[in-house]
Amino acid sequence: MEKDLYYNSWVSDYKYPFGASHYKSKVDFAIRVDDSKITSVKLVMRKDQGPTDEVNLIPSGDGLYYKGTTDFKEGPGLYFYYFKIEDNQGIFYYGNNQEGKGGEGQIYSQENQVKDYQLTAFRQEDPIPTWYQEGVVYQIFVDRFDNGNEDGRIDSPKPNSVIYTHNTPVPHYVKNEEGAVVHWDFYGRNLRGVIKRLPYLKEMGISILYLNPIFEAHSNHKYDTGDYFKIDPMFGGDEAFEELLQACQESDIKIILDGVFNHTGADSKYFNKFGQYDSLGAYQSKKSPYYDWYFFNDHPDDYEGWWGDLNLPRINSKNKEVQEFFYGQQESVVPYWMRKGIAGWRIDVADELTDPFLQGLRQSMDQINPDTLLIGEVWEDASNKISYDHRREYIHGGILHGVMNYPLRENILDLLNEEITSQESVTRLFQLKENYPRSAFYNNFNLLGSHDTVRVMTALDRQIEKVQLAYLFLFLTPGVPVIYYGDEAGLEGEEDPDNRRPFPWEREDKEIRHFIINLVEFRKKHPECIRGEFVPFSANQIAGIIRYIDDETWTVALINTGSESAKLSHDDLFDPSHFGIQAYLAERMIEEISVEANSFKVFTSREGESYL
Amino acid sequence: MEKDLYYNSWVSDYKYPFGASHYKSKVDFAIRVDDSKITSVKLVMRKDQGPTDEVNLIPSGDGLYYKGTTDFKEGPGLYFYYFKIEDNQGIFYYGNNQEGKGGEGQIYSQENQVKDYQLTAFRQEDPIPTWYQEGVVYQIFVDRFDNGNEDGRIDSPKPNSVIYTHNTPVPHYVKNEEGAVVHWDFYGRNLRGVIKRLPYLKEMGISILYLNPIFEAHSNHKYDTGDYFKIDPMFGGDEAFEELLQACQESDIKIILDGVFNHTGADSKYFNKFGQYDSLGAYQSKKSPYYDWYFFNDHPDDYEGWWGDLNLPRINSKNKEVQEFFYGQQESVVPYWMRKGIAGWRIDVADELTDPFLQGLRQSMDQINPDTLLIGEVWEDASNKISYDHRREYIHGGILHGVMNYPLRENILDLLNEEITSQESVTRLFQLKENYPRSAFYNNFNLLGSHDTVRVMTALDRQIEKVQLAYLFLFLTPGVPVIYYGDEAGLEGEEDPDNRRPFPWEREDKEIRHFIINLVEFRKKHPECIRGEFVPFSANQIAGIIRYIDDETWTVALINTGSESAKLSHDDLFDPSHFGIQAYLAERMIEEISVEANSFKVFTSREGESYL
Repeated sequence: MEKDLYYNSWVSDYKYPFGASHYKSKVDFAIRVDDSKITSVKLVMRKDQGPTDEVNLIPSGDGLYYKGTTDFKEGPGLYFYYFKIEDNQGIFYYGNNQEGKGGEGQIYSQENQVKDYQLTAFRQEDPIPTWYQEGVVYQIFVDRFDNGNEDGRIDSPKPNSVIYTHNTPVPHYVKNEEGAVVHWDFYGRNLRGVIKRLPYLKEMGISILYLNPIFEAHSNHKYDTGDYFKIDPMFGGDEAFEELLQACQESDIKIILDGVFNHTGADSKYFNKFGQYDSLGAYQSKKSPYYDWYFFNDHPDDYEGWWGDLNLPRINSKNKEVQEFFYGQQESVVPYWMRKGIAGWRIDVADELTDPFLQGLRQSMDQINPDTLLIGEVWEDASNKISYDHRREYIHGGILHGVMNYPLRENILDLLNEEITSQESVTRLFQLKENYPRSAFYNNFNLLGSHDTVRVMTALDRQIEKVQLAYLFLFLTPGVPVIYYGDEAGLEGEEDPDNRRPFPWEREDKEIRHFIINLVEFRKKHPECIRGEFVPFSANQIAGIIRYIDDETWTVALINTGSESAKLSHDDLFDPSHFGIQAYLAERMIEEISVEANSFKVFTSREGESYL
Repeated sequence: MEKDLYYNSWVSDYKYPFGASHYKSKVDFAIRVDDSKITSVKLVMRKDQGPTDEVNLIPSGDGLYYKGTTDFKEGPGLYFYYFKIEDNQGIFYYGNNQEGKGGEGQIYSQENQVKDYQLTAFRQEDPIPTWYQEGVVYQIFVDRFDNGNEDGRIDSPKPNSVIYTHNTPVPHYVKNEEGAVVHWDFYGRNLRGVIKRLPYLKEMGISILYLNPIFEAHSNHKYDTGDYFKIDPMFGGDEAFEELLQACQESDIKIILDGVFNHTGADSKYFNKFGQYDSLGAYQSKKSPYYDWYFFNDHPDDYEGWWGDLNLPRINSKNKEVQEFFYGQQESVVPYWMRKGIAGWRIDVADELTDPFLQGLRQSMDQINPDTLLIGEVWEDASNKISYDHRREYIHGGILHGVMNYPLRENILDLLNEEITSQESVTRLFQLKENYPRSAFYNNFNLLGSHDTVRVMTALDRQIEKVQLAYLFLFLTPGVPVIYYGDEAGLEGEEDPDNRRPFPWEREDKEIRHFIINLVEFRKKHPECIRGEFVPFSANQIAGIIRYIDDETWTVALINTGSESAKLSHDDLFDPSHFGIQAYLAERMIEEISVEANSFKVFTSREGESYL
């Protein structure tokens, strides 16, 4: 069954506009048929698991295309579509490719085998806070950054824990034979250490700090909150945080806190398993005001922990009192810290909180400061996630501004480790670009590593050229670049806890830092790299990124991740292109460009070839 | 073959004198035959694997005994003997019992199956330093005892290590996935902490401190010496040690150091594997002055470590330069610290050092102070050990004064845990008493636990009455009682590292300490418990210990380790006795004594029944 049919969701001749659409807008479709025997083409579309709607497409003037327009009858959400085609022999289908990546699709003969195309109909474009969009984020795991006490004193060491001597380069958990952490391990670094290093960060062009949790908690990572209204004494307490807020304000640096609202510590004011707090905790009594926060199967010892971890009893985010506690009132956790002056929140395990909870939280933030930011921890494509049987709509407007862009990280590392081709890399980029509402895509928290991943230096096997290419890629992809503390200093690290080594002050790798400083500068000078359109492409073994605002304002980066030098000709750029700007640029480029192995070239509309 | 023969090495009618003898003395033997058909009895004796000597025993006047006298023709050493008997039916043998415990023996028909009796012919009675014999030792693992810095400051933390916050009750190694220690764990306690607690120790009657190693080393236990001429800076350095020596002198407390001369640390001035020292270490070059100290199979990485531990490269104690370094010269390690004022040494893994090395070391000590003390770490009966194919003679005079009495510890714990009967316990005690030269037996370092064992509190399952009985036993057995820091405070602990918990200041168990204080007092007031004869006995489920100097100076302890109360009658004491003193005491005791379960009674020649 050879059929001459073509559709490509990424090309405006076939689908317009590109990607996600506002749910009140309309979308034009066209499918090329080149086949006179075809008698009917229908667009088959449904919202998620909802009822199917069929739209008859109309043959266009020249008979080569069937065209039509649809809207989103079922309101905002995730729509899926394919084409149902009839010719004189019967009915067949055109759907997404087998991998479901979007773009060019394929013909199917059986309807139940058709892969859908996804079409995101979002509720609203979320604003992009300028300070965020134009900023560069630096993520700090406070215990591992610096000790700001002049005498090296360690603030309020926790009972039953260990403290590394300051030059201990690699952390290890102290576990018992069953593998449980028995003494949390600390370096004793603190918020005054962050203050001390603000000049260092400013010099790098950092404008936003994302701090891993800083509320009182027993562990070193503090995802086991003990008291949401108290900065951990080992980090310097409330006083040090006030100083940090003040210092950041003076330096024009914003602060994003890590909101861990899905679970508390077992050792907390709320659960109080070990009786360390004065409160009546849920573990202690069914009469505890916090009893209904948690999921007890059999009080007190049989309760739900986050992924079975009984140190982290799960909170019921559907519970009204929980919502009141975290955001529903003047003095709730979120508004309390917002009023202190923080700029936004990164929400831990956002998938495990409900959309209404996150929405309520966002509304409470907006009331205090409409220029705020809410980022969610999501590991996959956030446009189509299902968690706890619910399709998540947290990036469809009005909830999360964006998410941690782990798919981008994986894409970049896979490309640089030659596990995927540049073509595959481009495909993945297009897929995210297609599925995300534009604002969410541009609000992404773009990272190469975090406290939860192998560090970029290690993931790229200490090849500095590749690390530099990774940063270039990161800085040229829509979203805001996030640098995980120490990555700029060449810090290595496997999985947790190795990725939480202390910052190697005085032993920094200057090369990476220097490169990042240049990138920050470059990004600042080239607004197209911040808010411009984004067109990734590949040719030979080169991955290319085009960012443009208009004919006079563009940047093109050519990244050769291969182990041999590669050439890009005028025709390479021009030929396979469905993208107007690419052809446009190709015309303006010199005849042939060669890019060395593991190297890059950047061209801009102003400087010509720009060496970063 | 029913034979009416009897011999018992523990009874003076059969062998005189009891136990080990000076090699220039003579020993009388007698065997009871009660059998007129016997035509000849020979004492068959050899020194170790040497030639056999046969001594004809002569029928005594009444014809019931064959008697004879022998001397030690082959000089000092370990002799073994049995009896060869001929009657009208042929030849048979009388030897030690199957378990080789001494005392009553048995008949054998095959010569090659006979179990020998051991007879120790020692070189010389070693002096018993009075300060030691009358003293009570307290063993301190310095990092775990107390921090003497008023501000809680930790002296010179080691690089790449962890420090517990002070109230961390249980230590754990920080190991990697292969099980290797990656960061040594410290509490940061120090020698000034010992100074601070001298009043506490004096109050307990402690007169001797045995300090686990204190020379500079990377680990917390410091058995991996880095520099033999330097006190570890984390313990306060040389300065703190000088202060401790001064303070101890003022308090009339002696100090015994832990001499670790069988291996160094890999991280040491001598081996210098990690280049942390300025010296040219053996690992670094074959031209190192220390190269010949070690056993290299293939320089530098293939070398012998203590029990395969490459962190502890073994030293060749036969090497002349090693001997010169440790003791052969004015400024060698041992004389250096002796001159500073320490009273003696406990030698780590004494079995692994040669006797000539230990003897040289002892001679060097005696030259500086004849009133010194040398104790060896030996885990078994030290009278008949063979190590590296050599019969060890280190307690035969002129080498070690005594050893760590681990067999006593095992005996006491087995008895109290009801794993052995009181009879078996007594047998084991007699065996040690028989095999050891008297001075070595009385110089034993008697302990219930150490940094290398489960703590007594844990070994006895937290039964305080049993712990008290264990101490009573310990204090009444010849040798010097050693208290492992914290045991008096009820500290628990399984094997290393759990047995090295920090001293629980302010949370001490006062009951055990109080009992120990009474024991120390009691021992001081009753010289028979220090230098008196020692006669253990058992009757019913009671284990008894008699100590006496003369008819007017004796103590009898009755220990009921069973779970029911037990009675001891006049006849129990009198009847099975071969021991004059026992009969003597029985006459003076009241008719019947009842001892409660898990309890004891002590009688003395002066106070009557004495309640400790």
